[in-house]
Amino acid sequence: MNTMLDRLRNDNSIKDFTNSELNALCDEIRIFLVEHVSKTGGHLAANLGVVELTIAIHKVFDLPNDKLILDVGHQSYVHKILSGRIDSFDTLRTFGGISGFPKRSESEYDCFNTGHSSTSVSAALGMARARDLLGESYNIIALFGDGALTGGEIYEALNDAGQNKTPLILILNDNHMSISKNVGAMAKHLRNIRINKHYFRSKLKISRLLDRIPLVGLPSRQMIESVKRRIRKSVLPTTMFDELGYKYIGPVDGHNLNSLISCLTYARMEKRPVIIHVCTHKGKGYAPAEKHADTFHGVGGFNAKTGEIPEHGESYSSRFGKKLVQLAEENKKITAITCAMPNGTGLVEFSKQYRNRFFDVGIAEQHGVTLAAGMAVQGLIPVIPLYSTFMQRAFDQILHDVCLQNLHVVFPIDRAGVVGADGETHQGVYDISFLSCMPNMTLLSPSDFAELDEMLDYAVNRHSGPIAIRYPRGGAESGFTHERFELNKVYIKEDGTDAAIITTGRMLRTAKAVFDKLKSERISVQIKELPTIRPINEAEIISSAMKCGLIITIEDNVLSGGFGERVCSVLATNGLNTKVKTFGLPDEPIVHGSVAELDKHYGLDADSIAEYIIRKIKNGKDKT
Amino acid sequence: MNTMLDRLRNDNSIKDFTNSELNALCDEIRIFLVEHVSKTGGHLAANLGVVELTIAIHKVFDLPNDKLILDVGHQSYVHKILSGRIDSFDTLRTFGGISGFPKRSESEYDCFNTGHSSTSVSAALGMARARDLLGESYNIIALFGDGALTGGEIYEALNDAGQNKTPLILILNDNHMSISKNVGAMAKHLRNIRINKHYFRSKLKISRLLDRIPLVGLPSRQMIESVKRRIRKSVLPTTMFDELGYKYIGPVDGHNLNSLISCLTYARMEKRPVIIHVCTHKGKGYAPAEKHADTFHGVGGFNAKTGEIPEHGESYSSRFGKKLVQLAEENKKITAITCAMPNGTGLVEFSKQYRNRFFDVGIAEQHGVTLAAGMAVQGLIPVIPLYSTFMQRAFDQILHDVCLQNLHVVFPIDRAGVVGADGETHQGVYDISFLSCMPNMTLLSPSDFAELDEMLDYAVNRHSGPIAIRYPRGGAESGFTHERFELNKVYIKEDGTDAAIITTGRMLRTAKAVFDKLKSERISVQIKELPTIRPINEAEIISSAMKCGLIITIEDNVLSGGFGERVCSVLATNGLNTKVKTFGLPDEPIVHGSVAELDKHYGLDADSIAEYIIRKIKNGKDKT
Repeated sequence: MNTMLDRLRNDNSIKDFTNSELNALCDEIRIFLVEHVSKTGGHLAANLGVVELTIAIHKVFDLPNDKLILDVGHQSYVHKILSGRIDSFDTLRTFGGISGFPKRSESEYDCFNTGHSSTSVSAALGMARARDLLGESYNIIALFGDGALTGGEIYEALNDAGQNKTPLILILNDNHMSISKNVGAMAKHLRNIRINKHYFRSKLKISRLLDRIPLVGLPSRQMIESVKRRIRKSVLPTTMFDELGYKYIGPVDGHNLNSLISCLTYARMEKRPVIIHVCTHKGKGYAPAEKHADTFHGVGGFNAKTGEIPEHGESYSSRFGKKLVQLAEENKKITAITCAMPNGTGLVEFSKQYRNRFFDVGIAEQHGVTLAAGMAVQGLIPVIPLYSTFMQRAFDQILHDVCLQNLHVVFPIDRAGVVGADGETHQGVYDISFLSCMPNMTLLSPSDFAELDEMLDYAVNRHSGPIAIRYPRGGAESGFTHERFELNKVYIKEDGTDAAIITTGRMLRTAKAVFDKLKSERISVQIKELPTIRPINEAEIISSAMKCGLIITIEDNVLSGGFGERVCSVLATNGLNTKVKTFGLPDEPIVHGSVAELDKHYGLDADSIAEYIIRKIKNGKDKT
Repeated sequence: MNTMLDRLRNDNSIKDFTNSELNALCDEIRIFLVEHVSKTGGHLAANLGVVELTIAIHKVFDLPNDKLILDVGHQSYVHKILSGRIDSFDTLRTFGGISGFPKRSESEYDCFNTGHSSTSVSAALGMARARDLLGESYNIIALFGDGALTGGEIYEALNDAGQNKTPLILILNDNHMSISKNVGAMAKHLRNIRINKHYFRSKLKISRLLDRIPLVGLPSRQMIESVKRRIRKSVLPTTMFDELGYKYIGPVDGHNLNSLISCLTYARMEKRPVIIHVCTHKGKGYAPAEKHADTFHGVGGFNAKTGEIPEHGESYSSRFGKKLVQLAEENKKITAITCAMPNGTGLVEFSKQYRNRFFDVGIAEQHGVTLAAGMAVQGLIPVIPLYSTFMQRAFDQILHDVCLQNLHVVFPIDRAGVVGADGETHQGVYDISFLSCMPNMTLLSPSDFAELDEMLDYAVNRHSGPIAIRYPRGGAESGFTHERFELNKVYIKEDGTDAAIITTGRMLRTAKAVFDKLKSERISVQIKELPTIRPINEAEIISSAMKCGLIITIEDNVLSGGFGERVCSVLATNGLNTKVKTFGLPDEPIVHGSVAELDKHYGLDADSIAEYIIRKIKNGKDKT
């Protein structure tokens, strides 16, 4: 019986709820979240942690007139429940359903799309400056976690906003976590603040105390006053935020609605940038998530009653982790760097076995990559697995620090290609394009686990210079028997003459399915796998073009600047006029849904491709 | 008479110089710098500011065994003079000569290549971790300016290094400047430290003072002690660096060799990360540079005696600035954002006329772009000119925050293409490739000033969504009569049938020169200008291919993922077998030299291209 949720459905607002009703609503929302996310999968722990905080924000502020920007956006579920999307929750993260992140297209309550970390303060400041210039008047609230404070962009923004006197409400949701345990000096600084919270609360008391101190035995009254002033100044600005010019409020208990509401009400009155430091527990109220906040950060379905999560089969991530542990046993120069993703990228075992060779740098891809460059210059072999989408953050460091210096850094690219439910902001469909313009960069992609093993061995032990290996989310293998990986070698997986499918990585599996479908149509197809995407093997493309009347490329990258375009340019510059059709992702944001649904939606599934080839070949045959 | 410089030439080291000899050397180096840079051009002011500091580092540390990493690298000249490159200074920044930045290939004293800001602490930490893991023992020194502290990557690194106990010597060269005056809350924090330096020096005195305070009238002895302890703790860690776990030393007078040497000697003994705060004056010792440190940041040749700099003619940067001022008069929603480059990007006049619509965010391209996104969401029209090479820093923000949300942000790309003397780290030859994979991004390039005016007017007033306009360093125009810009419109500048040159932007001038050369050979050439690079006008490419036997593309971008590849893919996917040759930059770091020298070196000059066409056409004609 969801009394308060039903009332919320009815009123479409919590403005008239009493505090005790709001507290009841908190409990109901937690139950609702566990029930739904256990079915749809999603970001559970972060949302359980911000139930009271989100409710307090909706209570105190006048949304959507006031603007709420959610950093990263994992924690947007409660906000969505409170802003008219409660009955869409069955569709969360499914094709055509509501997104797991804030989306302007979905609701006027979502004022800025997020997905990657540490952007909220920049966006909020931009909106604040727009408000001031246009002579408008509303509140702007940015909510970010302590994890976001490990990302450089937020310091750039804090540095800019701190010199500004425009009202801006920044809420630091301090739960000691990024996705895994938070790292770094800043995390330590926050811990110190939390530990000393009584001290912080009694700042005023201390200030009053100073007035009562008779500074006897000092040379002059003037000096006494000056020392008092200096001590006072030193005692009062005690956090890094004060140093940067913010009004610091906190720390506040993030699970106490009353405290939150009074803090936010106070902050709303301030005429300058304010930082409210809120302490929360990730996973709050659901025992399994409280205990394993990292596991319940992002989950697939699970048993809501017991918290049991079904075992995953082997994935490219876990396989990578396993192989790296083995390679590191033999080669002591290998180090592993993660940007707050030890779990997701499969590095947990490595971190246990080789503690002194493992470095979690926080959500700091820029630093992580230049750190790797520094290690490489001095003779180590750094391996820095990154999700494709987060690798974008380090574009300049990969190009400027690693590639221009031709340093031996290994970049396993996890979640390359279509990632599915996380959608637009997380699709890894740009990496072939953006890595292909970088000098000295070698780019590989395996189509099964064994190939990944061999590539990693090659990349670490036999390559020199920058090298990246892109592999998809999950664990689908091509279904072909595996041959030994060699750099630049091309593998003919099937042979034929009507058409040649030239592909790489995950899409080899699709190519196989196409081949099977065409067999029954008596269309003879060659399949070439290019595990080395860059440099591309021109001779093998030319030989296919000479043999077959039609070249098909398949990739799970955008077509612009991707694998297919590169094949086209090989054909065109070599004066070959074989017909070509490139299959890949279009020039538009790629929506969320299952990978199979998205492949179909974008015409990347075996049916669509086979159909195209049949039409082309039959038309061609009709004509002749 | 360069007594000390001659001795340096001889000894190849300053280790045995006395302090008074070193002071004399400082004077000689300043004269040497002004004399040379007034001829070659280069980064003068930064180097004049670090003469004593660099000498102190070379005196105290055992280079190249100890490692010195220079952030950005502008300030590397003194270091180069001290490390055996004094007699190469005539070749500074010239083709085949020494680079204006640290280069590992040039000297073992250069241990890490730099060019972009805020990477030094990351690299230094990577090297420190390598040293520790490999059981080696040497000092690592990173030297960075207060400008670098506006860039996010350095916080990511400080956050990581601050939790670490490995020895690392960080030197903050605080000259109150980025390239122009430094901005932000951090700059204010540093100013406070400088102003209160006596206080900082007397920290110990205050601590002793506390011991003498009788806290009368308080409830209990325990509370008295606790308050004293807390006050002490608050008085002692007084900088943001202390908060982050560093041993803070300073501020130190950066023009006093003795102070510097004793500070560095002390820092060398520390067993944990140290930050030394050194205060210097950019341009020190040369009156014109002291007065106009921004103008003398990077200069071409100038009159060494008077400091007079020859007037520059109009450039794309100044033309952009002028036009934007005019547009902003009419359209009040226009704002301008710069990342520490008001001068270089031509925004000085705008900043004076529209102070409240102008935002200098520091060397913070990530924040700058998301800030623009925030403004755009709320109805402003932000214009954020960036050098092509620095735009790389904001790759993810352009894609994730602007393009996925399809926001109307205008990106003038200055210094696109080959930039010349700054070399490898500054070449703007990747932007066509990396922008081309971004959904919703429109990309333009003018070939003369009037075209830039019209594009900017279009981009601001008639376009919606993200749009970038790339233009080169300097002011060379195509030489063709100008026609009115329309999106997607292609302009036939010359017509012919033997070959079609398809090009854009700066290279139209080259195309014209090629045309003129071929005329005398009686080869008839079509020239098509595509001011709209993306989306590309496929029909016009196809029509050229139908008409001419040979398609030539010319671009000052790398071929990988560039304009020519896109043309190839249009031809290939449309089944056209016209011969194609793409001219552009190769898959390797692009060295320094004049633009004309580099064009020739990479075969992008009119002679090379004309020669190719003549050979092809004549061979073709021979065959028929």
